[in-house]
Amino acid sequence: MEVDLNADIGESFGPYEIGDDQRLMDIVSSVNVACGFHGGDYRVMHQVVKQAVEKKVKIGAHPGYPDLIGFGRRHLEMASEEIYQLIVYQIGALQAVCRAHQTTLHHVKPHGALYNLAAKDQVVARAVAQAVFDVDRDLLLFGLANSALLEAGEAVGLKVISEVFADRTYTEEGLLTPRSQSRSVLTEMDDIKEQVQQIVFHHGVTTPGGERIHLKGETICFHGDGDQAYQHARFIRDYLQDEGVVIKACDYHD
Amino acid sequence: MEVDLNADIGESFGPYEIGDDQRLMDIVSSVNVACGFHGGDYRVMHQVVKQAVEKKVKIGAHPGYPDLIGFGRRHLEMASEEIYQLIVYQIGALQAVCRAHQTTLHHVKPHGALYNLAAKDQVVARAVAQAVFDVDRDLLLFGLANSALLEAGEAVGLKVISEVFADRTYTEEGLLTPRSQSRSVLTEMDDIKEQVQQIVFHHGVTTPGGERIHLKGETICFHGDGDQAYQHARFIRDYLQDEGVVIKACDYHD
Amino acid sequence: MEVDLNADIGESFGPYEIGDDQRLMDIVSSVNVACGFHGGDYRVMHQVVKQAVEKKVKIGAHPGYPDLIGFGRRHLEMASEEIYQLIVYQIGALQAVCRAHQTTLHHVKPHGALYNLAAKDQVVARAVAQAVFDVDRDLLLFGLANSALLEAGEAVGLKVISEVFADRTYTEEGLLTPRSQSRSVLTEMDDIKEQVQQIVFHHGVTTPGGERIHLKGETICFHGDGDQAYQHARFIRDYLQDEGVVIKACDYHD
Amino acid sequence: MEVDLNADIGESFGPYEIGDDQRLMDIVSSVNVACGFHGGDYRVMHQVVKQAVEKKVKIGAHPGYPDLIGFGRRHLEMASEEIYQLIVYQIGALQAVCRAHQTTLHHVKPHGALYNLAAKDQVVARAVAQAVFDVDRDLLLFGLANSALLEAGEAVGLKVISEVFADRTYTEEGLLTPRSQSRSVLTEMDDIKEQVQQIVFHHGVTTPGGERIHLKGETICFHGDGDQAYQHARFIRDYLQDEGVVIKACDYHD
Repeated sequence: MEVDLNADIGESFGPYEIGDDQRLMDIVSSVNVACGFHGGDYRVMHQVVKQAVEKKVKIGAHPGYPDLIGFGRRHLEMASEEIYQLIVYQIGALQAVCRAHQTTLHHVKPHGALYNLAAKDQVVARAVAQAVFDVDRDLLLFGLANSALLEAGEAVGLKVISEVFADRTYTEEGLLTPRSQSRSVLTEMDDIKEQVQQIVFHHGVTTPGGERIHLKGETICFHGDGDQAYQHARFIRDYLQDEGVVIKACDYHD
Repeated sequence: MEVDLNADIGESFGPYEIGDDQRLMDIVSSVNVACGFHGGDYRVMHQVVKQAVEKKVKIGAHPGYPDLIGFGRRHLEMASEEIYQLIVYQIGALQAVCRAHQTTLHHVKPHGALYNLAAKDQVVARAVAQAVFDVDRDLLLFGLANSALLEAGEAVGLKVISEVFADRTYTEEGLLTPRSQSRSVLTEMDDIKEQVQQIVFHHGVTTPGGERIHLKGETICFHGDGDQAYQHARFIRDYLQDEGVVIKACDYHD
Repeated sequence: MEVDLNADIGESFGPYEIGDDQRLMDIVSSVNVACGFHGGDYRVMHQVVKQAVEKKVKIGAHPGYPDLIGFGRRHLEMASEEIYQLIVYQIGALQAVCRAHQTTLHHVKPHGALYNLAAKDQVVARAVAQAVFDVDRDLLLFGLANSALLEAGEAVGLKVISEVFADRTYTEEGLLTPRSQSRSVLTEMDDIKEQVQQIVFHHGVTTPGGERIHLKGETICFHGDGDQAYQHARFIRDYLQDEGVVIKACDYHD
Repeated sequence: MEVDLNADIGESFGPYEIGDDQRLMDIVSSVNVACGFHGGDYRVMHQVVKQAVEKKVKIGAHPGYPDLIGFGRRHLEMASEEIYQLIVYQIGALQAVCRAHQTTLHHVKPHGALYNLAAKDQVVARAVAQAVFDVDRDLLLFGLANSALLEAGEAVGLKVISEVFADRTYTEEGLLTPRSQSRSVLTEMDDIKEQVQQIVFHHGVTTPGGERIHLKGETICFHGDGDQAYQHARFIRDYLQDEGVVIKACDYHD
C-alpha cells in the first residue's frame, strides 16, 4: 500500500522566512513550491529546489494570485483567461529553476484562494487544467478530492491526483466542511489518525453528521505555517509507516 | 548577405501601454520580450508571443532587474548569484508562454542596466551566460559587440550573437561611446544609414575621432519608446532591402 | 450658479504615462490624485501636485486597492478594517506631498472598485468615511450621488460632495445604470449636454425609462483615459460657461 | 543624566513576521517604524503605532528604498530628487497613521542603504534633510554621529540627534568601522557595556587601534532581527538604569 504526503513550501520572500521547509522535506514525498506571486521569490525557489533534489522529494509548482500582501489567500476578481496566463507563467518559472538543478517538475497544485475557486468553479477549473496541459501534458494535477478541478484535469487529458486533508472534515458530498461551520477542523491527534486510517485503508471518511462516505485520497496535504504542519506530518508519517504503508510520490504520467 | 533586425517589445504593464509593438513586429526579424520584472506582465507576454507567432518573428527573452518603477534602467546592487537566479526565472516564464503558443524560445538578451553591466563586468557576464546555458543550451545569447557578455557566452558553450546599434557611435575599443560624451548618438538619418552600410557591408565603423575600426554586427537593435524606434527600423529595413540584404533572424544553435 | 468639475489624474507610473493630466487641469476645478497603490507613484504625485498648484485646481486624494496590474478596477476581498488602513496611508502620503508644495489637501474620493463598493456597502462606506475623518475632519468626501458613502460621510461628521457623471444614465433609485445594461452610457454630445443641463439647472435627470428623478450634482466627474475625458470636459465646461455657470471647486469645510 | 534608546520596528509584511517588536517596545524609548517600501505595510503600521502609543514610546518614520525583496539594504541608483520624493511620501503615510491614533510623529531616520548613503554623500544628505523639513520642520532627524546627514539637517534648520551603536566600533574619524574590516563588530557583552559607558558618561570611544576619540551619542540604536537586538537592548538598558541614567526619548523640537 502506498500514499503520497505533500507540503506547501518555498513561501519565504526576500528577508522574510516562513514555514519549516527543511524539516518538512524530511517527512513528505512531494512538495508544492511557491512561484513568486503569493509568496516565494526567484532566490527562495532556487534554494528549495536544490534542497528538494538532495532530499529526493518530487517538486510541484504552487501557483497563486499576484497578491503577496494577502498571501494569495483572498479572492481577486479575475477573468479565467488571466488565470490561465498567470499559471502558465508561474509553472514556467519553476520549470526553469528545476532544469538549472538538473531535475524536472512533477506536478502542479494551485494555491490558496485559487485552489478553492478552482475546486468549485468549472470555468476556472478548465482554465487551470488547460494551462497545465499547455505547458507540459505530462505534469500531474493535484486538486481537492471530488472537485471540479480534478474533473477538468481529466477532461483535458491530464493525470489527476486526489488530495485530502488529515485534519479537515468532509461534507456528505465529499467536499471540505466550510471553516465557518463547527467541527470543520480536527484538532485531536486521535481523530486525525482515525481519519487518515479510514482514507488510506478504506477509501472513506465519516462526516461530522456520522455518515460514512467514499473518499479517494492519493496524496495527503500538510499546510499551515511552521511547527504545526511539521508535527502533523511527522505524526501521520510515523503512523502510516508503522502500519506498513509506503510513503511515495505519485508516479509521473506515462 | 543577411542581417537580423531586433526590437525590445512587450514592455507594457497592466493598464499601461508603452512602445509600438505591433508595428515593430512588421519590420524586424526577432524580438526581445520583457518578462515581468522591469516591464511586461503575464498577460502582455501572452499577447505579444501570440502576435510574434503570427508575424513569424523569432522570440527572445529580455530579462531585467526587478525594478518596474525604474524600468530596469538603473543599477541595483546584487550578487552575481542573484542575477543568475532572476535570469533563470524570467527565461522559464517566457518559455512556458512560448510552449502554450506552440513555439519555442530563440534567444536571450539582458535588458537595460543589466545589459550594460554584463557588457563590462566579467563575473556578471558569466552569471548571465551560465543562467542561459543551464536553462537551455540551444538558446542564442545576444550581447553588445566586443563585450564581456559575448566572451562569457562563448566560454560557456553558447552560440553568441553580436549586437550593434545603428544610431550609437563606437569608441576605438569597439564599445559604445558613453552617452555622457558628445557625438555618442547619431541623429541624422544619413549618418545612421552610413553606419549601417559600413557595419553590414564592411564589418566596421568610423569612430567620432575618425578612426576606422572592425565591428561585427550580426543583429541591429531598435529600441526606445514609440515612434522613433519604429521610424528608424523602417528606414534601415527599407535601405537594406533595397541593397539586396536579406532581413532574417540568426539561425538557431545546431 | 456654481458647479465643480473634477478629473482623475496622476495615474502614470514610473516609465508609463497614462491620461492627459496637463490639459485636464486647464479645464477642471478639482483633481483626484492617485496615491501609488492602483496607479501613480511618489514621483508622479510630486509632479502633478506641483502642476495643480500652478493651475490653481483643488487637490484631492484618490486612494485605491493595492493592485497596480489591475489598476484598482477589480474587486479584492478585504476586511473593512484593512480598507480603513490603506485609505489612511494613502491620504497621508499625498498630504505630505501637498505640504512639500505649500498647499493643502482638499478632498478624498475613493477609486475604481473601492468607489463602487463604498457606494453600496454600508460597512465599507463607514470604514472609508472614518478613515478620512480620522486623518483630517476638514477634508471633503466625494462620493456617488445617493450612495451609502455619502450617508456614511454625513453620519461621521464630514462635509460630503455629491458626484455625478455627465455621460452615465441613472436608475429610478438615482444610482448609475449598470454598464451591463443597454443605455447605461451616453455617447452623443447632445444627450450629454442635455443631462448636464438638467442636473445643474434643475437638480434632476431623466432615466432611460423616461422617468424624471431628483439628482443633486455638486461635482461632475471626467474620467477615462486620454483624449475622450479631455474632449468631454472641455465641451461641458464651454457649455456651462456660456450659460453663465461658474466652474469652481466646492468650499473647504468650515 | 539621560539617553535615548531606539529600535527599528514594524518591518513585518503581510503574512510575514520579522523582529521582536512587542518586546523591544518595552525596553526602548523611541522606535523607527518602516513605512511600506523596504518593509512594513499599512496594516503593520497601524498595529505598531497603536502599540507604541500604549507603551508610550516615541514614534519615528524609517523610510527606505522601494526594494522589499532586498529589504532596503542594497544600493539602488537614484537621483537625489527621487530620494527627496520617496521620503516625503513615506513620512506622510506614517503621519496619517499617527493622526488616526491621536498621536504625532516625533522623528525620522532613514533606513539601511539609504542611511549609509546619506551619512557620507552630501547631496543625498541634503535631499533627506530637506524632505523632512518640508513635511514638518519640527521633526527630529536621527543620523549617524559625525555624518553628512547631521550636518545637512542642521544646515536646513532641523534639530538633529546623534545616533551611536553599542556593538559597532568606530574609526579615528568617528565613523563606523566598515564591516569588511576585522574588529568592526563587538560581540562580547563586556566590550559592549564598556563602549556604552564611554559614550554615555565620557562622550567618547576607543577605536580598535587604541585611540580615544570624542563621540556624541544622544540615542543608541538596537537593530537586527529578533532575539539578539532584544537581548542587547535589555542588557544595556539594565546597565544604564543601574548607573542612574534615565532612558528617555529626545525632546521634541521647540
